[in-house]
Amino acid sequence: LNRNLAAQPTTIFTIMSELARQHDAINLGQGFPDTEGPQDMVRVAADALLDNRNQYAPLTGLPELRQAVADASLRFQGITVSPDSEVVVTSGATEALAAAFLALIEPGDEVVLMEPLYDTYLPVIRQLGGIPRLVRLEAPDWALPLKALEDAFSSRTKAIVLNSPMNPTGKVFSTEELDFIASLVRRHDTYAICDEVYEHLAFGAPHVSLMTRDGMRDRCLRIGSAGKSFSLTGWKVGYVTAAPALTAVVSKAHQNLVFATPPNLQRAVAFGLNKDSAYFTELARDMDKKRLILSSGLERAGFRVLPCQGSYFVMADITPFTQDGPQSGMDDVAFSRLLTQQARVTTIPASAFYDPNGQTPPPRNLIRFAFCKREEVLLEAVARIEAWK
Amino acid sequence: LNRNLAAQPTTIFTIMSELARQHDAINLGQGFPDTEGPQDMVRVAADALLDNRNQYAPLTGLPELRQAVADASLRFQGITVSPDSEVVVTSGATEALAAAFLALIEPGDEVVLMEPLYDTYLPVIRQLGGIPRLVRLEAPDWALPLKALEDAFSSRTKAIVLNSPMNPTGKVFSTEELDFIASLVRRHDTYAICDEVYEHLAFGAPHVSLMTRDGMRDRCLRIGSAGKSFSLTGWKVGYVTAAPALTAVVSKAHQNLVFATPPNLQRAVAFGLNKDSAYFTELARDMDKKRLILSSGLERAGFRVLPCQGSYFVMADITPFTQDGPQSGMDDVAFSRLLTQQARVTTIPASAFYDPNGQTPPPRNLIRFAFCKREEVLLEAVARIEAWK
Ligand SMILES: CSCCC(=O)C(=O)O
Ligand SMILES: CSCCC(=O)C(=O)O
Repeated sequence: LNRNLAAQPTTIFTIMSELARQHDAINLGQGFPDTEGPQDMVRVAADALLDNRNQYAPLTGLPELRQAVADASLRFQGITVSPDSEVVVTSGATEALAAAFLALIEPGDEVVLMEPLYDTYLPVIRQLGGIPRLVRLEAPDWALPLKALEDAFSSRTKAIVLNSPMNPTGKVFSTEELDFIASLVRRHDTYAICDEVYEHLAFGAPHVSLMTRDGMRDRCLRIGSAGKSFSLTGWKVGYVTAAPALTAVVSKAHQNLVFATPPNLQRAVAFGLNKDSAYFTELARDMDKKRLILSSGLERAGFRVLPCQGSYFVMADITPFTQDGPQSGMDDVAFSRLLTQQARVTTIPASAFYDPNGQTPPPRNLIRFAFCKREEVLLEAVARIEAWK
Repeated sequence: LNRNLAAQPTTIFTIMSELARQHDAINLGQGFPDTEGPQDMVRVAADALLDNRNQYAPLTGLPELRQAVADASLRFQGITVSPDSEVVVTSGATEALAAAFLALIEPGDEVVLMEPLYDTYLPVIRQLGGIPRLVRLEAPDWALPLKALEDAFSSRTKAIVLNSPMNPTGKVFSTEELDFIASLVRRHDTYAICDEVYEHLAFGAPHVSLMTRDGMRDRCLRIGSAGKSFSLTGWKVGYVTAAPALTAVVSKAHQNLVFATPPNLQRAVAFGLNKDSAYFTELARDMDKKRLILSSGLERAGFRVLPCQGSYFVMADITPFTQDGPQSGMDDVAFSRLLTQQARVTTIPASAFYDPNGQTPPPRNLIRFAFCKREEVLLEAVARIEAWK
């Protein structure tokens, strides 16, 4: 068996969700909403099923969805996109990421990434023979370390992965930071894989795509997710937007990985993307309110809560709990388990978002909370922690 | 960009379907039914959507679908399977195949395959650094070349890919052939990836899985497809059945490739797999009738039609058309194009099912017809060819 893959730990999301189930805990670990997405979209999906949209969709996606992705791109980022040659619909952003890596990487190519990072990036890059070059952002402000990032690029760099709004930090990259990244991408003549699945979940300054920066239009593969934008994580509909030369190869990767995505879900996502802007504003406003409820509750409960400008995750520093008393000396993993078992609230230990083969040990004082849950659930989670501590 | 992937031709299925659209041709190329799958399944899928089954499914699939896959495995092949540790649900058989290759292959590993073959096997194997060892089956009877197959195995062999019922040949491997393959797999201590997506479409002798043969239970990764078994090709729900040590790694590949498959479709496929055996018998009987209608029509129209024991494809020899007269000297590709343009019937040139980088040129006298179409459509296709020729 492939030894790297066999050695890959079971995803922390599954482990913690399982533990949550065992202890009947409130699951603020794996990021999925506990309310449903827009019911009109669900009805469109059901109608399309009954309307017999049940054979293979075209390889790159239904024309109506590619058009809707292009329209949304113009509306929200001012980027003009050809629906015919610049959009590939995928089975979720996970497949979009895998297809982008397959399209770009040859053995020996280097890929620049920022830690903490989502847990599928590294195994896919490594399995394709790519070499990750990791740059670490530091809590609590997760500022871009300019010098380290610059040093991570070389003549062997094939691409940088940029996740903004960023999971698990909640950071939204500023235009100054984007311009700095763009300058490196241009200078080294490389590509950028832009994981923008939380594009509609920025709370302060709006999310700006790297693709809008100077010289970036044809160097970026921009990835979006209907699961995240419409709170329908089970649907697994994603999209890649990129220049035709790039989508031509991404679509071949998609052909080999999945081939096509269920047409009824594609039709409903097209309907969703065509919603007027109020839907998207409301989504962000609602999520920001949840963020505030959870963050202030966690502060009251004794955590040091880190700032969060986007995504549906917030990081909390557990040091106030672990510096003395019964949890004294506990690391993030032990603390997360204890919190599930005793307080019946589940989180993700942040060390899971660092390279397991890395040389510098990950921070051990941070846990990640998902706040994409109903307000009463968030309040109950806080109440449980307060009762427990 | 990845040069191998960039060099991969656009899939012949998309090319021919596009050409069919342009010429308003009857599309007997890409294999998808022109009738819908069971309407009760479609209703279950729609109800599950409205019933709010719209967040992430578990990584390895809904328990009810894993149970149904295990039950079907026992019912149709006599193989006892643990639903908890031996089934992984994927986004179609294409993803199942990719995940199986990711799970097994390390750079330098050899994989034995039989030509003609499905067009995603080779690019995935090559992109993972695997080395294909191709053994060619020869028309018209596609007998297993025992000596050549034996010679293709070596100490570097990681796996053999066995597709039975076989696309595009329509061959169903006999138990003698399976036993011979099993003996090689045992002797070389390797694995078998069993692409059995047409398992319910065998017309003469029933389909027997390699997994039932001596010593094969824990060496096979058996792949099934709801799209093919229920004529719902757009749903992209597949499943891998294998020993726990194998599914553990396949599920990590699935985690990195897609992560999860839409829960409402999974629920409906579970419902479908639990249908009583009459459904599956009827499916095969109905498809066999279509096969007969098309095959006899094509014979009347002047083709030499090859035997077909399973799948929903039949091969035809175009030599009677190309040995003299207006199509004199034409190869399969030119003939297929002409048939679309002039007779308005679309097929797939069989040379597309051979390694494009192979040393021995592919046969140039065969085209593949899909017969998973309504009887009147098949008759009209034959009538068009007769009118044209
Ligand atoms: C695909 S399961 C993980 C969901 C997610 O994006 C997260 O929790 O970070
Ligand atoms: C995935 S499109 C091709 C469908 C098919 O299996 C075939 O036509 O061989």
